[in-house]
Amino acid sequence: MKLIIAKDFDEMSALGATEVISYLQKDKRVNLAITAGSTPTGVYEKLTPFVKNRPEFSNAHYYNFDEVPFKTKDGYGVTMGNLDRLFFTPAEISAENIHVLDENNYQEQDARLAADGGLDLIMLGLGGDGHFCGNLPNTTKFGDLTSSVAVDATPNMHDILLSEVGGDERNVPDYYVTMGPRSVMAARKILLLVNGKHKAEILKRVLEGPVTEDVPSTILTLHPNLLIIADEEAASLLAK
Amino acid sequence: MKLIIAKDFDEMSALGATEVISYLQKDKRVNLAITAGSTPTGVYEKLTPFVKNRPEFSNAHYYNFDEVPFKTKDGYGVTMGNLDRLFFTPAEISAENIHVLDENNYQEQDARLAADGGLDLIMLGLGGDGHFCGNLPNTTKFGDLTSSVAVDATPNMHDILLSEVGGDERNVPDYYVTMGPRSVMAARKILLLVNGKHKAEILKRVLEGPVTEDVPSTILTLHPNLLIIADEEAASLLAK
Amino acid sequence: MKLIIAKDFDEMSALGATEVISYLQKDKRVNLAITAGSTPTGVYEKLTPFVKNRPEFSNAHYYNFDEVPFKTKDGYGVTMGNLDRLFFTPAEISAENIHVLDENNYQEQDARLAADGGLDLIMLGLGGDGHFCGNLPNTTKFGDLTSSVAVDATPNMHDILLSEVGGDERNVPDYYVTMGPRSVMAARKILLLVNGKHKAEILKRVLEGPVTEDVPSTILTLHPNLLIIADEEAASLLAK
Amino acid sequence: MKLIIAKDFDEMSALGATEVISYLQKDKRVNLAITAGSTPTGVYEKLTPFVKNRPEFSNAHYYNFDEVPFKTKDGYGVTMGNLDRLFFTPAEISAENIHVLDENNYQEQDARLAADGGLDLIMLGLGGDGHFCGNLPNTTKFGDLTSSVAVDATPNMHDILLSEVGGDERNVPDYYVTMGPRSVMAARKILLLVNGKHKAEILKRVLEGPVTEDVPSTILTLHPNLLIIADEEAASLLAK
Repeated sequence: MKLIIAKDFDEMSALGATEVISYLQKDKRVNLAITAGSTPTGVYEKLTPFVKNRPEFSNAHYYNFDEVPFKTKDGYGVTMGNLDRLFFTPAEISAENIHVLDENNYQEQDARLAADGGLDLIMLGLGGDGHFCGNLPNTTKFGDLTSSVAVDATPNMHDILLSEVGGDERNVPDYYVTMGPRSVMAARKILLLVNGKHKAEILKRVLEGPVTEDVPSTILTLHPNLLIIADEEAASLLAK
Repeated sequence: MKLIIAKDFDEMSALGATEVISYLQKDKRVNLAITAGSTPTGVYEKLTPFVKNRPEFSNAHYYNFDEVPFKTKDGYGVTMGNLDRLFFTPAEISAENIHVLDENNYQEQDARLAADGGLDLIMLGLGGDGHFCGNLPNTTKFGDLTSSVAVDATPNMHDILLSEVGGDERNVPDYYVTMGPRSVMAARKILLLVNGKHKAEILKRVLEGPVTEDVPSTILTLHPNLLIIADEEAASLLAK
Repeated sequence: MKLIIAKDFDEMSALGATEVISYLQKDKRVNLAITAGSTPTGVYEKLTPFVKNRPEFSNAHYYNFDEVPFKTKDGYGVTMGNLDRLFFTPAEISAENIHVLDENNYQEQDARLAADGGLDLIMLGLGGDGHFCGNLPNTTKFGDLTSSVAVDATPNMHDILLSEVGGDERNVPDYYVTMGPRSVMAARKILLLVNGKHKAEILKRVLEGPVTEDVPSTILTLHPNLLIIADEEAASLLAK
Repeated sequence: MKLIIAKDFDEMSALGATEVISYLQKDKRVNLAITAGSTPTGVYEKLTPFVKNRPEFSNAHYYNFDEVPFKTKDGYGVTMGNLDRLFFTPAEISAENIHVLDENNYQEQDARLAADGGLDLIMLGLGGDGHFCGNLPNTTKFGDLTSSVAVDATPNMHDILLSEVGGDERNVPDYYVTMGPRSVMAARKILLLVNGKHKAEILKRVLEGPVTEDVPSTILTLHPNLLIIADEEAASLLAK
């Protein structure tokens, strides 16, 4: 595990983008699972000008690692919608390099990744409750592969999903899908980005507390090739 | 994770030795943590003729990963005594390539390994109770680095240690030391050898059951580069 | 570059087989280009019992790197015929894991290898004249990709090809095909096997002489990941 | 080999810096040989703010790969003087991470690098005459390790060295030192940066012409892990 403490969100984003670009610069296919949400927006902003119109980077294949489907809408769910807006469309990633995980194919996700050569890198954010991907406390177990999680999995899940789908009750799905801890740990490298004061407490628990399913991201600290880039605010409570 | 099913103990040993030799054939320093016990005896028998008198393999550095000291004897403890007898002496490994972990230096083990460049390979056996190294159920936690475990850690620990030191009560130590799950998961590759009918049940639990501290070796299945070589007897209860 | 000096042909074969098996034991597709000829016969003998009937090794894909077609016979040429007899048939390698290079498709070989992810390992022998694959002195240049070499490329080429096809003039082809030095150097690892007194002189030139197209194999010594396994006779003239 | 065509000097520098930072972000010691001259100035400008005051990057060790000593001055020669000014001083690299090659120790350079674990990356520029490091046409051979080159090695060498030392005749050295082609090819990755119209002709020869000691950099194209980042001007003459 390596922890890099960036000055701020902008430096965290620059160093995160650097890590991604180093994979694009490789002379072979690379499989990258990437995250939506607010943490990586700066990474995508910095990546886009380098990736757009650059056939040299067509060796990179992209995977989403979770999905919240809209119950009454066709097309992309929440995650793919965000990735499309934040990165795939502005960076003009071609469709054949985008590998969609959704509620229809999640049971094949682990076999598909293995057949594609495995993930070279998975870029994650850290949830305030210690979740990564859709692995929230009390939803999945450390041993789980890609799974579905029902809307009634936890008391607050309905509200979480309601917020995810933009507040429209009709769109709250019966379940969402996510790569499980076992799926994520199989990646050859994990990049975890963390920023802001509101993540300081949970980052401290992840790095200094016990490894427990109550804080799912603690399992990531056992991966032999974990890179954490946190900004100073997120790292402010860590033991020196 | 890759699981290879060998016909028998001999083939398991041959394939295990092959994996070790492939590291010795590299053109750079490699750090190998290796196991004592009954499982790897065949590996060492096959390794020795290739390693002895071969300066080309002096790039390999060896580490023991646990130690049960004799309370009233100086010199090597149980693990190093076994490794010395099984491999270091017959293969004529030079002292500067052997890095001893013992009760006096265990608190520096993780930092020392990091300074040496980290472990390239750790070769493990699987205990009938699901332990690996000295991580027995209810002794260490998934998050633990190299630790000491006291003789009263579990009700049966005294008897286990008594057996380890050869049945002489005067030599039962107050504690033993072991690399913890966190230390082991930091290795770049894990090789787990399993043979015999008496291991079939526990191998099934490790590979098909939940990841839990009650069966410490279950954590190994989350390592992205785990190779298991089991013989047919040990694999006989696995789901097809 | 690493040079390992084996006692004899048998030990060279055992160490060579070990290197190959370590690739088969990986948990991902591996692409291996392998050699026919007399040098590797011991390697294939040692490999076969481990490979046969082992679905765990179906991640390995095999490529021949040169071919001498029979002018009047259909089917495999000299190289593929030998590989088939020495290894593919006894080890029961399935057809979908065998990727044939021949006189009809050689112009696509380099692009095909790149699309397949590149060669992880190429196992070579050393010719008495310093050739590797079909890169004989005065036939190809260091910069060449996979190429054809005409029967009149050198004064003695007709005789060489006549011997290759078993002495039947009617079968001497107009040209043979070979991966060029540039193709071979693109592999991630090169394993060069050398045995016997009759190779001592040329091995000395390869390792101690200038890098020159007159001794094609000298270029291999500039590869950052070259492993040479030579027996004592082949290494007998090397400077200590 | 992978060729990336950057829009201009600034983008070339950004992508080059990205590659370097990806090594600094690794969780182990990395050995980097880096270049002085005009090509990498933008890389160092971009690197410096990320590297300065960042103890997380103290895993990186830096090596110069050639040196032109001043005949009448003590202290750093031309290359180390430039590296110090461009990068080591502004980025506050600590002395223990800087490994100086000079006229006194060049004969130990290859053994020292091997003992340190080998070079992970060497970052090079391309000379207008096809040179890399101090390997000018007619000075070194492809098979050379780190070598000295005398002031009378070629007819124009005196003038070249006079220019290197700033035009003062008294400082023209009797010889300079450089890692040879064999030393450079031993690195695990080569990064070659090329910019400007004045490099278009030579880049075309390197990539499309024969591999020959007359154009020393042609040998780099046989390295299995070569990344070239060229700007559009430098790439303007390449075949599409």
